[in-house]
Amino acid sequence: MTTGVRRRMGVEERRQQLIGVALELFSQRSPDDVSIDEIASAAGISRPLVYHYFPGKLSLYEAALKRASDELAGRFVEPPDGPLGARLLRVMRRFFDFVDEHGPGFSALMRGGPAVGSTATNALIDSVRQAAYVQILSHLRVEDPPARLELVIRSWISLAESTALIWLDGRRIPRGELEVQLVHDFAALAAVSAAHDEEMSGLLRRMLKDEPGDGPFGDLVTRLIALAS
Amino acid sequence: MTTGVRRRMGVEERRQQLIGVALELFSQRSPDDVSIDEIASAAGISRPLVYHYFPGKLSLYEAALKRASDELAGRFVEPPDGPLGARLLRVMRRFFDFVDEHGPGFSALMRGGPAVGSTATNALIDSVRQAAYVQILSHLRVEDPPARLELVIRSWISLAESTALIWLDGRRIPRGELEVQLVHDFAALAAVSAAHDEEMSGLLRRMLKDEPGDGPFGDLVTRLIALAS
Repeated sequence: MTTGVRRRMGVEERRQQLIGVALELFSQRSPDDVSIDEIASAAGISRPLVYHYFPGKLSLYEAALKRASDELAGRFVEPPDGPLGARLLRVMRRFFDFVDEHGPGFSALMRGGPAVGSTATNALIDSVRQAAYVQILSHLRVEDPPARLELVIRSWISLAESTALIWLDGRRIPRGELEVQLVHDFAALAAVSAAHDEEMSGLLRRMLKDEPGDGPFGDLVTRLIALAS
Repeated sequence: MTTGVRRRMGVEERRQQLIGVALELFSQRSPDDVSIDEIASAAGISRPLVYHYFPGKLSLYEAALKRASDELAGRFVEPPDGPLGARLLRVMRRFFDFVDEHGPGFSALMRGGPAVGSTATNALIDSVRQAAYVQILSHLRVEDPPARLELVIRSWISLAESTALIWLDGRRIPRGELEVQLVHDFAALAAVSAAHDEEMSGLLRRMLKDEPGDGPFGDLVTRLIALAS
């Protein structure tokens, strides 16, 4: 009914629309290169009206980043059903979907810079990392993680971030390969830790116990055996 | 001859002294918590005199960071002699020495924040990462790295950074264990990549060809065989 008709929006509705428009622009180009004028124009409102809703570009950027963070954290949520390797692979596919959709903005954010290095943006990045960490722990059904398990999970999360950033820089390796490889990397880092520590060795055994031979973890073992021979 | 006597320093000498004093303070506490007054007092000069040499805290911070970056990049330099695994382990020991000496400053820098997120500091961090990357390539004797090798090396560098940061947060795992583990992680990430790609498989074979059974790479294989049995 509203097609072609400029209708009045409520304050919260307008704020949400602006956040959506800004997120779209901040995803496609580095935030430093996006102006308030462009955001106003893309939203079909005047520049002063943008400032009526957001005091400046930084606050609009932070609101857009908050929405993107919530969305990404939502993609980590995976039902606790079926083999672990397959669950992790599904999450990796959704993670790369997100990275793909928000490429330039994701790069600019994670590489830091004048428009993105605020305390608030760093806190948002950390909250997404924490959401990923909590999800993985819950899938491993570990409530009180030993320091070595925490290290494996958190350092693997940073590995996933850097792998995505390197992929975005030229996309020289097919993303599907990297999604599988990151699942394999998780198993490999856990195995290295298990090779150093009894408790991690027990955790790894439990983790791999119900993995099918044709799942990603089984696939890694097959590939490594082929490599060694 | 100068003991106990305040002697006049030349401009460059004074600048270098201030950088050293500032680096010491910025290493021990988050840069946000270090004041120009403290730096002046630690250097034995007046606050206005500090401003005579550096326009503000940020420029002094950047100069201190430049010195620390050069020092860290210097620690990556390792003669191209002997087995690769042992070389990498020596570099890891020196890397953890550095992290140990500059703990709070290293954490604050790598976690970002108001005083540290400038374009100049990001460029310095990237230059250190690049120095590490170039060193590793030269040890592997690869001049024109394929995309998958670049990914393994660069993502492993980020893994080393995050491992060091997690270690600093409570030091709950002995650093000697992490130094060895990072060497093992490098081999594990390279093996996962080799399990997906012929060219990487050839590179891995060449890399492991001259490794002794009692070096870090041989040690990993022994440990993994024990784990699997």
